[in-house]
Amino acid sequence: MTAATGIWPPAATPFREDLSIDMERYVAFCHQLLRDGAHGLAVLGTTSETNSLDLEERKGVLEKLVNSGINPAQLIPGTGAASFGDAVKLTKHAAELGVKGSLLLPPFYYKGVSDEGLFEFVSEVIRRVNSKRLRLYLYNFPQQTGLIWSPELIATLRGAFPETVVGIKDSSGDAKYLNKLLEKFPGFAIFPSSESLMVDALDKGAAGCISATANTHVKEIRALYEGRKSSQAAAMNKRASAIRTLIASFPLIAAVKATLADQHKHRGWHRLRPPLTPLDEKQTTALREKLAAL
Amino acid sequence: MTAATGIWPPAATPFREDLSIDMERYVAFCHQLLRDGAHGLAVLGTTSETNSLDLEERKGVLEKLVNSGINPAQLIPGTGAASFGDAVKLTKHAAELGVKGSLLLPPFYYKGVSDEGLFEFVSEVIRRVNSKRLRLYLYNFPQQTGLIWSPELIATLRGAFPETVVGIKDSSGDAKYLNKLLEKFPGFAIFPSSESLMVDALDKGAAGCISATANTHVKEIRALYEGRKSSQAAAMNKRASAIRTLIASFPLIAAVKATLADQHKHRGWHRLRPPLTPLDEKQTTALREKLAAL
Repeated sequence: MTAATGIWPPAATPFREDLSIDMERYVAFCHQLLRDGAHGLAVLGTTSETNSLDLEERKGVLEKLVNSGINPAQLIPGTGAASFGDAVKLTKHAAELGVKGSLLLPPFYYKGVSDEGLFEFVSEVIRRVNSKRLRLYLYNFPQQTGLIWSPELIATLRGAFPETVVGIKDSSGDAKYLNKLLEKFPGFAIFPSSESLMVDALDKGAAGCISATANTHVKEIRALYEGRKSSQAAAMNKRASAIRTLIASFPLIAAVKATLADQHKHRGWHRLRPPLTPLDEKQTTALREKLAAL
Repeated sequence: MTAATGIWPPAATPFREDLSIDMERYVAFCHQLLRDGAHGLAVLGTTSETNSLDLEERKGVLEKLVNSGINPAQLIPGTGAASFGDAVKLTKHAAELGVKGSLLLPPFYYKGVSDEGLFEFVSEVIRRVNSKRLRLYLYNFPQQTGLIWSPELIATLRGAFPETVVGIKDSSGDAKYLNKLLEKFPGFAIFPSSESLMVDALDKGAAGCISATANTHVKEIRALYEGRKSSQAAAMNKRASAIRTLIASFPLIAAVKATLADQHKHRGWHRLRPPLTPLDEKQTTALREKLAAL
């Protein structure tokens, strides 16, 4: 099984007024992302507010997607949790559904933990999931977790589990870290989290891009991915980066959802689960006007 | 129902070689802490490695304790989770068992969230648990969660839920923050997380102490609590602080468990679940020798 490549949006989650998942709308949106150019879906990520869903909801979302006819080989769900026990349950469930792989956060409660402790955590997950089908993509997001998958630890994990630990999504936004990974690990499926970094990273061997703003601009990002060596590349890259920079100048997840609410003309996209909060009216209007002016 | 007072150790968790909970040893230890002077047990806290237990294990531990004959009014379990859905399930389960209250972490995945978002999170938990018995003790541990229960937010929560939000455990170690709470919120059940801060805090109106090292030195801490106005107070306080400072000069949870392994002559106490790691041989020996010399 080859590792994932291309554009894998971390599909956002629409909520009903009582904050339950609007499953019908969610499933339809996932199908639309695929029709609009996504190679696959990195579902249940940070932008999806996964860590604000309970464990049963997380399993339920994945089952709904597969039952709706999405090819599980086009799904890489986030299955991380603070405890290896819960991470194992989610990862095993996803593997049994036949997904392409799982995005694994480091255990994100305790801080200042050692590479040795993180190695043991991943080892326990792999040992307990106990499936030849298991493919893990490490999920690096130090701004949320307070932890980093260090290049040294990644090398150790790849050495110990070469068939299983096949890639990484890097949401750090740290180009130096990203470039170090690209240099040290040719053949590792490395996904930056922003289309602003994508073209340069692809030139250096990245596998693709898992970006929050692929929720709102998947067509543009796919076009950039395909056309990155064309005469239009510079102009497309500039425009994609401008859109990304604008949306990310607001609280990112709330801004993605405010834009989805406009695009899909439905209030459910505007809702976030606490502790996250939606953009206020003033921010929503400012974002809308600036986006229209681009 | 009056709020909790006194010494409430956050009981540590012994593991078998396969990292499963050694339940028999755990339950016996909890009974011993109560016999040795604990007023109650703040079970399933950070020192207990709760966030390294899966959700079913967390419920199971609490049921075992109650079934073993511990009065649920002597239990304040940690029932926090990153999602309000899981926090609700744990908190409701605990309330139905009749516990004294629940220690609630803020949702600890997303960072940089607003007081408004944290308020909504707590509101959802209270609304969905929907029990008159519910008593919440906020759990402040910014070093792990990256979030703080600000005095302004605490005031808002107390105003909105005066019967329910009754106290706080402050693990920040920040005396300035602690003193601010003590000054602003008379009648709020405030627990510092270290016996080094306890006597001064009790003088200023604190309710007691929830300390990691109450696992290993509950008799000394209870004696200090009772004797803090006696002629022995200064000497007892100095000794308790010296023990605390020594143990906390090592990685705290690992050092508590290494000391428990010595006290109970059982290896199971020395084990931690990843991502935490035990003290190495050299650290263990150094801690043992320095403790013996005190």
